Amino acid sequence: MMKIEISKKQKNKKTKSSTITAKKVSESELRQDIVTGDWVVIATGRAKRPEDFANVEYSTHNLETSTDNCLFCDPEKSGQEKDVLIYRKEDGDWTLRVFPNKYPAFSRGRVPRSLEEGPYFAMTGTGYHELIVTRDHFNHLPDLEIVEVAEVFDALQDRYLDLMKKKSVNFITIFHNYGKEAGASISHPHSQLIAIPVISPYIRQELAGAKLYHKSNKKCVYCTMAKYESDHKKRIVFENDSFIAFCPFSSRSAFEIWVMPKKHSPYFERITNDDKIKLAEVFKNALTAIKKTIDNPPYNFYIHTSPCDGKDYPHYHWHIEILPHTSTWAGFELETGIEISMIRPEVAAKALRQSLDLENLK
Amino acid sequence: MMKIEISKKQKNKKTKSSTITAKKVSESELRQDIVTGDWVVIATGRAKRPEDFANVEYSTHNLETSTDNCLFCDPEKSGQEKDVLIYRKEDGDWTLRVFPNKYPAFSRGRVPRSLEEGPYFAMTGTGYHELIVTRDHFNHLPDLEIVEVAEVFDALQDRYLDLMKKKSVNFITIFHNYGKEAGASISHPHSQLIAIPVISPYIRQELAGAKLYHKSNKKCVYCTMAKYESDHKKRIVFENDSFIAFCPFSSRSAFEIWVMPKKHSPYFERITNDDKIKLAEVFKNALTAIKKTIDNPPYNFYIHTSPCDGKDYPHYHWHIEILPHTSTWAGFELETGIEISMIRPEVAAKALRQSLDLENLK
Repeated sequence: MMKIEISKKQKNKKTKSSTITAKKVSESELRQDIVTGDWVVIATGRAKRPEDFANVEYSTHNLETSTDNCLFCDPEKSGQEKDVLIYRKEDGDWTLRVFPNKYPAFSRGRVPRSLEEGPYFAMTGTGYHELIVTRDHFNHLPDLEIVEVAEVFDALQDRYLDLMKKKSVNFITIFHNYGKEAGASISHPHSQLIAIPVISPYIRQELAGAKLYHKSNKKCVYCTMAKYESDHKKRIVFENDSFIAFCPFSSRSAFEIWVMPKKHSPYFERITNDDKIKLAEVFKNALTAIKKTIDNPPYNFYIHTSPCDGKDYPHYHWHIEILPHTSTWAGFELETGIEISMIRPEVAAKALRQSLDLENLK
Repeated sequence: MMKIEISKKQKNKKTKSSTITAKKVSESELRQDIVTGDWVVIATGRAKRPEDFANVEYSTHNLETSTDNCLFCDPEKSGQEKDVLIYRKEDGDWTLRVFPNKYPAFSRGRVPRSLEEGPYFAMTGTGYHELIVTRDHFNHLPDLEIVEVAEVFDALQDRYLDLMKKKSVNFITIFHNYGKEAGASISHPHSQLIAIPVISPYIRQELAGAKLYHKSNKKCVYCTMAKYESDHKKRIVFENDSFIAFCPFSSRSAFEIWVMPKKHSPYFERITNDDKIKLAEVFKNALTAIKKTIDNPPYNFYIHTSPCDGKDYPHYHWHIEILPHTSTWAGFELETGIEISMIRPEVAAKALRQSLDLENLK
């Protein structure tokens, strides 16, 4: 594979996020479940009246795709918040920009304040919510060039490194919604980054599991998976020398794919430029395989990485989880957290890699 | 409140579930996530080919409501499995029936068999999946009489007590999907019961949390909540002397309601006939309040109760969680398990109890 360097000179940080004046402060609260210790966000800055919850419109398969009233094609014109990061081509036109969400679920820059009520505990919803927007309205991540996908990871790393320094930030989640059923409200391609004071329950569970597995087996559970999948090829979708994409043995969704560095690495934000390109190649192929195999379904992806709360997480291993939406979640799944997948990951993986039409993977 | 007894003589168990011949055995697997210890179901008995996952039709707000081709109005005619329980009126017409799901995610009656692959662990997907169907096609739970709602709880208890005796059953989950967005595929009112060998991650988390709270505070965390909510009335929706319905302090969804016995009780299946009526009154009011306040939204509800794996769970406290669907879950929620609710539970509860038009609760 050709080595392509992301040119650092093209980066142009217009505004430091710390200097942004929050125009719309969202009065949100992080409330703790006293049974499980998990958190919920009550975002009253986005509050509605009770009657506004009636007649919720449920979405059809496709988002409106016109550029005419797109909020992200020209973020300045549509009154978005000021950029915290912008990448430009030589000719000055932008290729990627990052700006705070105009309707954040969290109030920026404040130190979280404790709120108590009887047996309950809450804190003010301090955090940062940023949008990472690529230039073209129609070209989504699988449609971009590898170097353009790498640029997205570069921007995510850049923002991660900036936000992890903030006093109130202990955890940063990066995710992407494609399609209305996956929660996208704007069709223009964008990823999201939310930096908050509390660690998500899923990551807490993975951290605990990875630590326990290491204690019992003296090795990383994710390294074990990556090696097994690369050796046995049953569930592999695509790989290069640095990254592997495979359908996990215990897939929660049909056609679920995990993308993982082959080398043990707890922290996404320490990714090298070379590895951003390698990651982009594998990731683009994974998304392309999903798009081709199951006809452009809605999907979410998430970067799972260690918290940034000042502690070390030597046994964790960052990775990306891609979850296509091929059915509506029903009561059983929502209730139990036990998903019912109607296709074996082995069958899904075979179809996915065949769609890529790569001789060596058939 | 008038005392109404559920007449036991009207019960008529046509078939013991243990004697049913599984016509369509689903070759499913329970696969364990080696990181978290959670389980997923790979239900290949319902398997599709990869191409069948393309062009998934996403639902519109309302399910088709005609009785013409309803599978549950006349379950015998539509070729459903044989009833395992049927309740009849004096005139012989049925009021409620329970039969196995024709397309179960689990194979009935087998002893789970271990399946291993490299570092991974799975077992055959043994379990029971039953449908609890009330007579009328159009009248959903909030539309039924209190005694009819109590009859549903009576049937659920009956089936629970039968299935908990099975060797392969360690956990029984009871849930109900109303509306397509909540996962209902058939509009005729029905609840579901799934009995499986593994405990759901959510319940495991609640059990652990309840135990820890008891250790620290020498009291039940759910009793603490029920008492605080009943005393302070800020988040209450409806209550009688035995049950309370309230919007939890850390609501995950807008208008979420928990219905809980006021007296400490770890096991749903030990509910008395008197309490079934008391529960039905509170539960019907909770669902009615949701229907009136936010215009008949889709919802799920779940009975959270102790596992039936032979162990005691003295610190747990069974309850029902009702989750209306007022928005599509987006990436952040799906990823982090941290929900963003756009209304304070205090505001939601006020609107809900006002909708019931009960002077003493305004």
